[in-house]
Amino acid sequence: MSQTITAGATDLEQLGINVIRGLAMDAPQKANSGHPGTAMALAPLAHVLWSRIMNYDPAEPTWPNRDRFVLSPGHACILQYSMLYLTGYGLTLDDIKAFRTPHSHTPGHPEANHGTPGIEVTTGPLGQGVANGVGLGIAERILRTRYGPEVMGHYTFVIVGDGCLMEGISHEAASLAGHLGLGRLIYIYDDNHITIDGPTEIALNDDPVKRFEAYGWHVENLGEISNDAEALEAGIRRAMAVEDKPSFLTLRSHIGYPSPKFTDDHRAHGDPLGEDEIKITKEILGLPPEEHFWVPDEVVEFYREAGARGAEARKAWEAGLAAHFAGPGSADKQSWAIQWGGIGADGWEAKLPTWSPGEKLATRASANAALNAIADVVPGIVSGGADLTGNTGTRLNDAIRQDRESPGGRQMAFGVREHAMGGIMNGMAAHGGIIPIGGTFFIFSDYMRGSVRLSALSEHKVIYFWTHDSVGLGQDGPTHQPIEHLAIMRATPGLRVIRPADANESAAALRIALESDGPTALILTRQAVPVLEGTADGEVDRGAYILVEGGDDPDVVLIGTGSEVSVCVEAAKLLEADGVRARVVSMPSWDLFDAQDDDYQDLVLGPGSPVLSVEAASSFGWSRWADDSVAIDHFGLSGPGDEVLAEFGFTPENVAGRAQALLDEIDNGSDDEFDSESEDGV
Amino acid sequence: MSQTITAGATDLEQLGINVIRGLAMDAPQKANSGHPGTAMALAPLAHVLWSRIMNYDPAEPTWPNRDRFVLSPGHACILQYSMLYLTGYGLTLDDIKAFRTPHSHTPGHPEANHGTPGIEVTTGPLGQGVANGVGLGIAERILRTRYGPEVMGHYTFVIVGDGCLMEGISHEAASLAGHLGLGRLIYIYDDNHITIDGPTEIALNDDPVKRFEAYGWHVENLGEISNDAEALEAGIRRAMAVEDKPSFLTLRSHIGYPSPKFTDDHRAHGDPLGEDEIKITKEILGLPPEEHFWVPDEVVEFYREAGARGAEARKAWEAGLAAHFAGPGSADKQSWAIQWGGIGADGWEAKLPTWSPGEKLATRASANAALNAIADVVPGIVSGGADLTGNTGTRLNDAIRQDRESPGGRQMAFGVREHAMGGIMNGMAAHGGIIPIGGTFFIFSDYMRGSVRLSALSEHKVIYFWTHDSVGLGQDGPTHQPIEHLAIMRATPGLRVIRPADANESAAALRIALESDGPTALILTRQAVPVLEGTADGEVDRGAYILVEGGDDPDVVLIGTGSEVSVCVEAAKLLEADGVRARVVSMPSWDLFDAQDDDYQDLVLGPGSPVLSVEAASSFGWSRWADDSVAIDHFGLSGPGDEVLAEFGFTPENVAGRAQALLDEIDNGSDDEFDSESEDGV
Repeated sequence: MSQTITAGATDLEQLGINVIRGLAMDAPQKANSGHPGTAMALAPLAHVLWSRIMNYDPAEPTWPNRDRFVLSPGHACILQYSMLYLTGYGLTLDDIKAFRTPHSHTPGHPEANHGTPGIEVTTGPLGQGVANGVGLGIAERILRTRYGPEVMGHYTFVIVGDGCLMEGISHEAASLAGHLGLGRLIYIYDDNHITIDGPTEIALNDDPVKRFEAYGWHVENLGEISNDAEALEAGIRRAMAVEDKPSFLTLRSHIGYPSPKFTDDHRAHGDPLGEDEIKITKEILGLPPEEHFWVPDEVVEFYREAGARGAEARKAWEAGLAAHFAGPGSADKQSWAIQWGGIGADGWEAKLPTWSPGEKLATRASANAALNAIADVVPGIVSGGADLTGNTGTRLNDAIRQDRESPGGRQMAFGVREHAMGGIMNGMAAHGGIIPIGGTFFIFSDYMRGSVRLSALSEHKVIYFWTHDSVGLGQDGPTHQPIEHLAIMRATPGLRVIRPADANESAAALRIALESDGPTALILTRQAVPVLEGTADGEVDRGAYILVEGGDDPDVVLIGTGSEVSVCVEAAKLLEADGVRARVVSMPSWDLFDAQDDDYQDLVLGPGSPVLSVEAASSFGWSRWADDSVAIDHFGLSGPGDEVLAEFGFTPENVAGRAQALLDEIDNGSDDEFDSESEDGV
Repeated sequence: MSQTITAGATDLEQLGINVIRGLAMDAPQKANSGHPGTAMALAPLAHVLWSRIMNYDPAEPTWPNRDRFVLSPGHACILQYSMLYLTGYGLTLDDIKAFRTPHSHTPGHPEANHGTPGIEVTTGPLGQGVANGVGLGIAERILRTRYGPEVMGHYTFVIVGDGCLMEGISHEAASLAGHLGLGRLIYIYDDNHITIDGPTEIALNDDPVKRFEAYGWHVENLGEISNDAEALEAGIRRAMAVEDKPSFLTLRSHIGYPSPKFTDDHRAHGDPLGEDEIKITKEILGLPPEEHFWVPDEVVEFYREAGARGAEARKAWEAGLAAHFAGPGSADKQSWAIQWGGIGADGWEAKLPTWSPGEKLATRASANAALNAIADVVPGIVSGGADLTGNTGTRLNDAIRQDRESPGGRQMAFGVREHAMGGIMNGMAAHGGIIPIGGTFFIFSDYMRGSVRLSALSEHKVIYFWTHDSVGLGQDGPTHQPIEHLAIMRATPGLRVIRPADANESAAALRIALESDGPTALILTRQAVPVLEGTADGEVDRGAYILVEGGDDPDVVLIGTGSEVSVCVEAAKLLEADGVRARVVSMPSWDLFDAQDDDYQDLVLGPGSPVLSVEAASSFGWSRWADDSVAIDHFGLSGPGDEVLAEFGFTPENVAGRAQALLDEIDNGSDDEFDSESEDGV
């Protein structure tokens, strides 16, 4: 292990590094919670990145061309918070002292878009940052290729831990990054040999160098230089010089360094060191042992100056941008403004197609048609699938595939990598300038849950095309047929979920997704569904609307979503023939409907009328809106989609019968309790 | 590419291989759906495995010591079905003709425990089989070490595709298998260079040999021998001879071979070839081009004989087993009977501890105490966490860690590999003899969704310990605080979900999990909760029961789950002081309660009484049981757990106030619609 004097650092830099280590001990101690060890170990690395390497302006944390920094092991965030405070992002020492307290700017893990400037992405769930970095890198390369290096040209630095690298998402993301040859990605592996359960060796013997070489990365084992500022800087600069491959640097570090008791000890990972050990460690570091949160003015000044240098770089960029756009490429200026800050060229929504009753097509196909209708005028769109690009409607007409040969290509081939696709989309959205669209079968949203939740928590504007959205997909069978997934996604806070009934609703859904500030999931059919009367001006924005009136005072209300709306329309006709006034409500989005006022909700649902929901999925949650549900509360079946749907009761005849049964139940006065069972197998 | 004559095969073997290829074309063609290409390409490999390598008895598909076969790219299942038919598992040619039709034994992907003998694990969602194989291998090694090679000693063969290897779960599983040194695992990589979107090269440039070397596997690139029976057999046998490492064999194959039009074409992946092309290909193969499902008797006889050889091996094993148990180790016999077919020694349930009111401990701690109380008498238990073993209550007292040095160890260190943990647990359960328990934070159930769903679909008896089950976990904040996860798991068909209120309920929950035939999720607290009066004989088996009576005709019913039950008990006292009779219902399990008859449900919920649910999670779904919910319909907050719970309304005072408000609302006659909003921030 190195001595506590950081090699290759001035006295002032040494002091700064040790002050960072002091904060890394003090803040978790005060919070009685937190992770001091990694932050202590990586203080020299943070120092080098923020004072010698990275290009950033603390006064303009969202400067488009800043270098991006990702701390994938987000539990070490006291390190990041300390740097944001020291370099002048507006975070104060009081914020550091408020570490891990409610409503502070310094929560237990870094949260993007939650009031802490300088946090690019939310990390904590391990491995996400590995994928986010790839998304940041792809976004940068696309924009650099499109607008030139005067407009965009930065690096993305990602610290990864052994936990991140054990997670499967790291494999998916790193494999794709190597394939794409993202030269401006620099990953630094904090190789501390420690996990929560003990030494990494109890569960991990991978050779990380060989592994990343297998992915096509530039790899360098930096070895025992975690406390050598000059060697760290030189190693990172060597990686920055490699333009055709992402770089993976392994850094042997010592968690908890230089605590005598906890260096290289797994207890330094997740627990405060304790006052006594902190005092002893501060003595070793030459910090006043009785002081807490001790930051001398000269250290603040040093880092503020580093930040101020970035301000100059930012001003130079702005001047260069003005000159660039004043030149022959001036048409770019407007495009750049839309790309960076807007959605599409004026009137982009008008390009969305409409369809007429009589046509019949899958909503994955109509969503794709809508996407292609606007792709030219919504420059931020980058679209693709997890090896299901054609199948999921995410293929752009004549689009160029994003790869080494076409670094501006906006057709993604994510490969069979759903989880990384989600994390990469989050990174793209976090970068700015890109609106990522990613598709897979709805069932495989299971594989991306970890990233999808962070889309929602971080309010990233990403759009999921989840297709093959019910047993209607057919023969692939139960392993591929979603049942509980609508409930899963509807239960996720902050995720907009839209299941369009037909082509017109799917175009509206795409528009809503593009106009939203956060993530949207479009739930789309594999099978063709008819275009319905009344959807061309349907109020998808309100989440639910009356498609078939059924009179002012209908006998029964049928709520359908997606492919089941057309079944409800046909069922209503059968009921009408039997003298029953049935209203049909199309409810593409619970969350949008939930946001409406009571009057509108009552207007649509007709308060007092019995309500039957019809959705080829779990009934879970439907008791909120409906008195009974035609639903599927078991796994699916391998067979032709129409046969399976019919067997499970999704026919006009069965729906009409179920509506009649609900009415009979009420007439018999037996509706004193809610019958939640779905009837199937009829 | 090789010629159509399979090298190193007799004429009869050649005929058999080509008949398999014929079935691989005919069945998808008849179903108008399915994946012929891979099955055609791998016919020689299947032939070699089933006729020259594997040890199995078709008449006894569950023979404990059979070799295990996993087809991770489950879409190629017509290959597996053909072998099961030919070797005599009871599958008929009519079953093959019924491929992908409803209720057939030959669904679109292989489904374990759904009536198709010989299917070890359910595959289809890519990558799962990679992890299942590791679980099968661990189970075999533990049992071999415990009972000796006379009782257990078989191989596990897993075919993996490029899609499987792109998935992150493959990284997690392979990394752990390399660490563990599972010598009896043989993986064969079907390297066909084709994915759904096109050639693999559009998204994948990994060096698989280097990658698996990095994991510590024995690796051999078999190259262009996919149509050479002798070379295939020799390559597999070389891998079988490597005892200290799992083996990874890469096999360059040609999807759709030998179809002139579709060989090496991605269209052969997911679509029938068409009648014309099938005829042409049959001619090339020397099969009668006009015949469908053509299987000459001598081919059936050939494979039935191969199966019959396995029957002799099985009989020899049975005789050896009898001799083994008759010897000095005869005590093993009873242990083996319990291990293979039972739960625990007689009276194992009686060893479960009980706790008394006044004690206070986290349910993760009481679940751990319950686990350790019975671990000695329930021999199947193998337990561990995804780098959170101590944190999740899955540590066994004095248990030995499963690794190379202690191959019988039943303390798993899964590493930070949640998804693989789930897939490995499924494999262990599928093997038989092992009851796997795996723990992680509840939030990271997101990372394992893909495997959890297959636990449920395949009815694998696995037990999840998901801890840190609410915002009560505290400072780690929103990235670590589950909100929607109870809804997610409750909505999943076939998954038993139990959230115990205290120590006594947690012991009962573990007992129920062990007695269940399928998967059970225990949802456990990080924070200490009081032991409650009445839980020691609480009816956890019925899903919900009355904990505080509140009179025959209570004014209001408070339903709590988990850590919120004690809050309800205190709230009931406050209400009582105000003259309100409040019943408290503990509802640890929705699915168990749902299985009760109406009378019991009415008895517990008191039909007619207003019901308030109290659960520190999303209200999603609660409208089924309750009129209003104290819930959290947004993301959490980083701060001390008790502060966050209080801020979100989980205090006796707020719950009592909300109950009173519900009663007032009814008194005012304004209860004409369900108010689903949860109130928080009070």
